[in-house]
Amino acid sequence: MIYQPKCKIEIETVKATSIHDVDFDTLEFGKIFTDHMFVCDYENGAWKTPKIMPYQALSIEPSARVFHYGQAVFEGMKAYKDADDMIWLFRPDENFNRINKSAVRLAIPEFPEAYFFEGLKTLLNLESDWIKKGLGNSLYIRPFVIATEQAISASPSNAYKFMIICSPAKAYYTGDVRVLIAEKYSRSANGGVGFAKAAGNYAAQFYPTNLANKKGLQQIIWTDAGTHENLEEAGTMNIFFRIGDKLITAPNNDRILDGVTRKSLIQLAADNNIECEVRHLKVKELKDAARNGTLKEIFGAGTAAVVSPIIAFEHAGEVFELGKFKDSYANFLKEKLMNIQYNIDEDVHNWRYKV
Amino acid sequence: MIYQPKCKIEIETVKATSIHDVDFDTLEFGKIFTDHMFVCDYENGAWKTPKIMPYQALSIEPSARVFHYGQAVFEGMKAYKDADDMIWLFRPDENFNRINKSAVRLAIPEFPEAYFFEGLKTLLNLESDWIKKGLGNSLYIRPFVIATEQAISASPSNAYKFMIICSPAKAYYTGDVRVLIAEKYSRSANGGVGFAKAAGNYAAQFYPTNLANKKGLQQIIWTDAGTHENLEEAGTMNIFFRIGDKLITAPNNDRILDGVTRKSLIQLAADNNIECEVRHLKVKELKDAARNGTLKEIFGAGTAAVVSPIIAFEHAGEVFELGKFKDSYANFLKEKLMNIQYNIDEDVHNWRYKV
Repeated sequence: MIYQPKCKIEIETVKATSIHDVDFDTLEFGKIFTDHMFVCDYENGAWKTPKIMPYQALSIEPSARVFHYGQAVFEGMKAYKDADDMIWLFRPDENFNRINKSAVRLAIPEFPEAYFFEGLKTLLNLESDWIKKGLGNSLYIRPFVIATEQAISASPSNAYKFMIICSPAKAYYTGDVRVLIAEKYSRSANGGVGFAKAAGNYAAQFYPTNLANKKGLQQIIWTDAGTHENLEEAGTMNIFFRIGDKLITAPNNDRILDGVTRKSLIQLAADNNIECEVRHLKVKELKDAARNGTLKEIFGAGTAAVVSPIIAFEHAGEVFELGKFKDSYANFLKEKLMNIQYNIDEDVHNWRYKV
Repeated sequence: MIYQPKCKIEIETVKATSIHDVDFDTLEFGKIFTDHMFVCDYENGAWKTPKIMPYQALSIEPSARVFHYGQAVFEGMKAYKDADDMIWLFRPDENFNRINKSAVRLAIPEFPEAYFFEGLKTLLNLESDWIKKGLGNSLYIRPFVIATEQAISASPSNAYKFMIICSPAKAYYTGDVRVLIAEKYSRSANGGVGFAKAAGNYAAQFYPTNLANKKGLQQIIWTDAGTHENLEEAGTMNIFFRIGDKLITAPNNDRILDGVTRKSLIQLAADNNIECEVRHLKVKELKDAARNGTLKEIFGAGTAAVVSPIIAFEHAGEVFELGKFKDSYANFLKEKLMNIQYNIDEDVHNWRYKV
């Protein structure tokens, strides 16, 4: 049964699904894609009629601006299936608002709200079989926009493609995460694009992360580019620190992504009488807390891994081991969050969105 | 006549050239491409046999990492034809070294030197008719690398495409350039990728540049993200300031591109007894010099426009008009440089490279 969208969407379905070729027990994150994709072209100053079509390669000129100037933004979302086979999104309005905020900063035209939500609903109803029940299973949803105009002068494109592709995902186990606290490399500048989900922000982190990997550290916690004294975010996750019984996470600014998981955890902490300070934590404070035993937890927060506990950090050649903490805020908040996402607990903040 | 490359290159030529459809008198920069393109794929840890083939659209999966994470670098070069129909490049070793320096910072595998130079020579010999004689005419050459692996996890790609496409160009007249000196937005961070020709560096400048355009200013001179007190570069050009009879240009660092035109002008200034200081000029110094009449010229230096005189700048709401300066260093150095590029003057530094 195909959902009937409230705006015009041209729909071409696959002749045969490829779902039977997929082993859902051994899914690697972001490698397998569902049968269909959503595509909407921007030309001559307007977004055209959206299309849903079989997932397929794009035909793009080598002169398309995205290849040369990185004019591209994206979002990450998930769809969840509850015990009654109903499909839910989590705060999709946040993702919609953010992709347009990213778009504005990258000089990309904003995408219409109706196209976004009707496109999502139509696509997810078509792909319902790809969304598996069970806590941790989800369909990862990747909306993105790329500049397609055939011109290599360094200026904004006059043509774009807005797309949504979907990839089935199981519980994302990150293993024991050890992090490096950045002292030399930086993720973003004051007045730059760090707050946006701009494509180029990610490639810029790969090399420093490779260097950290070689030291046995999986991720980097970025610090401010000016002094490297303030803890910011991890590039694909916002970061929370627990010192004593208090959580601390950095405020949003033009360098730090306004994460949906981050802001949901801040609210859930408040709901459950866990104090959470939104302020810059200094590297020195963190190290002092690790030394005097008051540092209890560090964890990342993001759509892909939800909550990712960090068991050690390295800074200036010194390694600090946290070990694993029982009765952790990380586990407590993760469970609270997932119970809302999977329609298990009551949703007092109206975060769930029925597809 | 096809040049015989010294390494294996698979060559498929067009059945019919499209050169007769092109009006070389009304060329817009970067919109028309020549008959052929150079393509080399990286897979399973190695660059494969390069190919030259008819210029055509690429077939790329929507999950290719370049669309999501901006893992892409490029170069800009030009080929010039002299009075005897010989084709020349200008310091191509600099572009080769820089694309690999950019690649390393973006976690992209370096490209082999022989493929780069043999690819260029073979391609340019095929496209010889597209390179028009006459000072100012050239063939703009765009080598670039994009991440093609089909995977949307935020990590470096295992597959890439190195390509070279070419676009005929005539003298690049930028018009009267008025610039804004950045006070709020930034181009790059300490420890970031500003020194690299990373795709994402360019899209990040489009929005602030649009804002400047609305004020009647064509470009931005970026300042350091920390204090906005030091003048850096213009995003597609390095910048020179002439105060009294002395030139000043910013030193290279991890925020500023090591421009080929910039370093050539510094050498040509030395050759011609023009003092050139390589140091950070402060915004305050610039404004003081504008006020006391010692600021004589500002000009940009880059491959596309060669040398681009700037006639006014705005900072903190104040506009400073420079007017046009007779006997300018800009014109003098531009002529010296172009006479080397077009094989008119002697080439004492061995900058010319015969194709």
